Amino acid sequence: MAEKEFILTASCQDQSGIIAAITDTIADNGCNIVNLAQHTATDIGMFFIRVKFSGTDAFNQDSFSASFSKLADKYKMDWKIHDTAQKKRVAVLVSKTSHCLYELLLKHDAGELDCEIPVIISNHPDLAHVATAFHIPFFQVDPAKGKAEYEADLNSLLEDYKIDLVVLARYMQVMSGDFCKKWNNRCINIHHGFLPAFKGAKPYHQAWKKGVKIIGATGHFATEDLDQGPIIFQDVIRVNDTRSIEEFITMGKDVERHVLFESVRRYLAHAVFCYEGRTFVIE
Amino acid sequence: MAEKEFILTASCQDQSGIIAAITDTIADNGCNIVNLAQHTATDIGMFFIRVKFSGTDAFNQDSFSASFSKLADKYKMDWKIHDTAQKKRVAVLVSKTSHCLYELLLKHDAGELDCEIPVIISNHPDLAHVATAFHIPFFQVDPAKGKAEYEADLNSLLEDYKIDLVVLARYMQVMSGDFCKKWNNRCINIHHGFLPAFKGAKPYHQAWKKGVKIIGATGHFATEDLDQGPIIFQDVIRVNDTRSIEEFITMGKDVERHVLFESVRRYLAHAVFCYEGRTFVIE
Amino acid sequence: MAEKEFILTASCQDQSGIIAAITDTIADNGCNIVNLAQHTATDIGMFFIRVKFSGTDAFNQDSFSASFSKLADKYKMDWKIHDTAQKKRVAVLVSKTSHCLYELLLKHDAGELDCEIPVIISNHPDLAHVATAFHIPFFQVDPAKGKAEYEADLNSLLEDYKIDLVVLARYMQVMSGDFCKKWNNRCINIHHGFLPAFKGAKPYHQAWKKGVKIIGATGHFATEDLDQGPIIFQDVIRVNDTRSIEEFITMGKDVERHVLFESVRRYLAHAVFCYEGRTFVIE
Amino acid sequence: MAEKEFILTASCQDQSGIIAAITDTIADNGCNIVNLAQHTATDIGMFFIRVKFSGTDAFNQDSFSASFSKLADKYKMDWKIHDTAQKKRVAVLVSKTSHCLYELLLKHDAGELDCEIPVIISNHPDLAHVATAFHIPFFQVDPAKGKAEYEADLNSLLEDYKIDLVVLARYMQVMSGDFCKKWNNRCINIHHGFLPAFKGAKPYHQAWKKGVKIIGATGHFATEDLDQGPIIFQDVIRVNDTRSIEEFITMGKDVERHVLFESVRRYLAHAVFCYEGRTFVIE
Repeated sequence: MAEKEFILTASCQDQSGIIAAITDTIADNGCNIVNLAQHTATDIGMFFIRVKFSGTDAFNQDSFSASFSKLADKYKMDWKIHDTAQKKRVAVLVSKTSHCLYELLLKHDAGELDCEIPVIISNHPDLAHVATAFHIPFFQVDPAKGKAEYEADLNSLLEDYKIDLVVLARYMQVMSGDFCKKWNNRCINIHHGFLPAFKGAKPYHQAWKKGVKIIGATGHFATEDLDQGPIIFQDVIRVNDTRSIEEFITMGKDVERHVLFESVRRYLAHAVFCYEGRTFVIE
Repeated sequence: MAEKEFILTASCQDQSGIIAAITDTIADNGCNIVNLAQHTATDIGMFFIRVKFSGTDAFNQDSFSASFSKLADKYKMDWKIHDTAQKKRVAVLVSKTSHCLYELLLKHDAGELDCEIPVIISNHPDLAHVATAFHIPFFQVDPAKGKAEYEADLNSLLEDYKIDLVVLARYMQVMSGDFCKKWNNRCINIHHGFLPAFKGAKPYHQAWKKGVKIIGATGHFATEDLDQGPIIFQDVIRVNDTRSIEEFITMGKDVERHVLFESVRRYLAHAVFCYEGRTFVIE
Repeated sequence: MAEKEFILTASCQDQSGIIAAITDTIADNGCNIVNLAQHTATDIGMFFIRVKFSGTDAFNQDSFSASFSKLADKYKMDWKIHDTAQKKRVAVLVSKTSHCLYELLLKHDAGELDCEIPVIISNHPDLAHVATAFHIPFFQVDPAKGKAEYEADLNSLLEDYKIDLVVLARYMQVMSGDFCKKWNNRCINIHHGFLPAFKGAKPYHQAWKKGVKIIGATGHFATEDLDQGPIIFQDVIRVNDTRSIEEFITMGKDVERHVLFESVRRYLAHAVFCYEGRTFVIE
Repeated sequence: MAEKEFILTASCQDQSGIIAAITDTIADNGCNIVNLAQHTATDIGMFFIRVKFSGTDAFNQDSFSASFSKLADKYKMDWKIHDTAQKKRVAVLVSKTSHCLYELLLKHDAGELDCEIPVIISNHPDLAHVATAFHIPFFQVDPAKGKAEYEADLNSLLEDYKIDLVVLARYMQVMSGDFCKKWNNRCINIHHGFLPAFKGAKPYHQAWKKGVKIIGATGHFATEDLDQGPIIFQDVIRVNDTRSIEEFITMGKDVERHVLFESVRRYLAHAVFCYEGRTFVIE
């Protein structure tokens, strides 16, 4: 009799007895908790929980959901249940630089990124050979058509491939507010600067001129306000003043690919809670 | 009506339904879970849990313990409950170098180390003025008396001051196997090397000669096997090859004081589980 | 015959043959180079060099300076020579929090900060006991008098004590433009945020609300534009989203004291070149 | 008139006036110093220097070498001059895991690894497709033949391809003492443990069982004593106790590829001096 694993995520105003109520409901459904992580942000009075649990073949997700709904109503929870056997479908959008794309594809190949990558989309032809080498369909979309038509093409591709998550892997094209809203909290971008400083173009040049001693990158959800979306993961690297801008850019690439991968990995692990413009990542 | 906070720690062979059983027992006693962290080491089949919960004035620790004991018997748990209002009593043992002692005292003064420090003990007179500046009794013990007599003096001091935890803050004296057994998992040492390499004397000299590029320090429980006790916390610092041994020693001091503080802090937070010679630190 | 050690620092437009010309002049004066570090910022065409050299008792600093001046004129260099036996005199300015002050005093006591600390000045009486414990005169100045009069008092104290460098060790008082100009590149401040983000008040609160995953501190020269002066050193620490603002503040203190110490240490080693609002730190 | 760039490396017993003598010789040959880094290991009395300089078309390497030889004889220097236009030829040896190989090839493709990679050699067929994708000849050698014959095959391949540096990119085959001697200081290995601890097989398993809180990897020159060769570069990553061995292995891969790349990059920059079993890396 095979086991199935599920991840339950829930958030609500902090109240007494929530954890016991949730773990009880899971036990009452004949399931076993594999892993539980929880956090109460006392400053804003919010409670967040992520529970991984296993059920037997007899487990019925619909009846679980029905019983959990009652609890959720009582506590006014936002919640979701994810069957870990159902891989999320991720589209990777790229332009001309390959380091972030390779990172995702190599980790995926090594079984370290828990998703499917059914399609790669670009506004340039340059990286088609990478897609080919990994046997993934590659499509080129043309922003010159005008933003509306081009984003319609893009959305139609994303729908055709039943995409759950869009990853902008150094995709050099600003998305419209409509696109960001449609993919709200389901579109991850990598910014090659340590946000909130160094928004916008040429962040390494900005950092060099400012004489900062540490540079970084930021993985965040794309929002209409450019480079202001909720931050998922960040990392930094110490630079010394003998480095040129070119060396900043080269060293930064390692940070970027790592940050993008870790942002996507956390998302796919259902560890990222988004609340009023900031994230709470709970692992 | 004031609230009291407790921390429950428990470990046992991994089994189904433990988390729900524990959270239930807490809820049934009218308490609210503030924070729960748990880990299953699948490799060795062990389950560890740490739960912080609050009770009202009506909460009775004895009756809670009675009801939890039944659960513990069923699951064959090792467990403990700690009233957070009861501060642990910590003795700091030092020799001639002050950086680790100052770190503990300054953090304690700033309210960042959740304990009492009723006594400082040394095998040298050098740091008496530090103890005086912080208004803490200072005692000198004399190893020249012979190990047995000197450790008897030491133990008698530790008992007089009702000490819960002994911290060896660069205390340059090897403790006997008897002492280590008596204070088993209640005596924390800082080793100025990145264990398991560089055991024994002059670890920075060993590291320099080996040409390592990163040096570190290790906080661990003292055991009879010198520098082999269960590791609680470690940290490292990158060194470059233009550094002298003297610079290794100077740079290492920052790592040592940080590692010792973090080891003690984790212990006092009841986050350190010790199982078959290694620790599981759960926060 | 005792040896004396000197540090020569020089900067100019990059040109051919500068290093050989400098090392020649040093050799011609009978001195031996102990250590040489140099950097050319190709982006702005500037050359920076720091040379430590030793001379015998026969070495005459005036005649060296006369011969070096000719070279400096030829290459249009900014330059200085420092006798390492002449310790810089450092005034530490504090308010109510002690962690940065203790760091400087403890490192100084351990022989790890190459300067004299003849005076501690504060706008509050709170830390007088720390100064006393380290046998350093403590003066309280009163900003309530009005900025002009209070800064006059301050300057008069700094002159009485023949101060070379002013260190603002969490000194909670904004200095006037006149003060910053007078102490241009000789007044180091610690900002408890990772600049250029999080300028101004309550940087940890800003960081927490923004949901950043890494916080930091910045040591910089004080300038009229608050928190915008040339950056000397920065460091960061990873925080996770389960941390409260209070924990940000506590964790940040370790970063602050480290960054301030490292900034001052670099300055005292004559390793900090300041050029058009940014520093080049060469070690 | 094009410029040529050269890197001069030299080491000798520390003596007065060496730096001026070297920079003079370079200037006398009509060359300009681009970059100079030097270190005196006072503990062992050794001097190391690395100078990058540029010469015009008129520069003659033979006549430079003749004049530098006189200086070198006087100071009993070990020295070498490298024409930066002559790329080193690097052979990458692999087995079944691809992450280190990909790192080297992708960095090389991006122009971040200053060498040629004319051949990839393996004791298994698994990674042939990677070589193909990057248009690099792939050869399989067979250890089953017996060590002597198999290493003869290997050496003959390395000679055919005029290899300067052998990189063992997770090559799972112990090399003989003869091979290590032949390629002394020209064969770089990556060990997936933080040496000197965790030598030998399964270092992550060793680390996990020991309960260390930080794991790492070590790039070193291959020597007959397994995992004991001079260390070139190391890096580490913090792990927490909730990680499984499998996660150690996955997380470690990122450290390994980074450490191997940085070790090779430093070697190719002629920044690695090897002296009595340890390295001095000077950048």
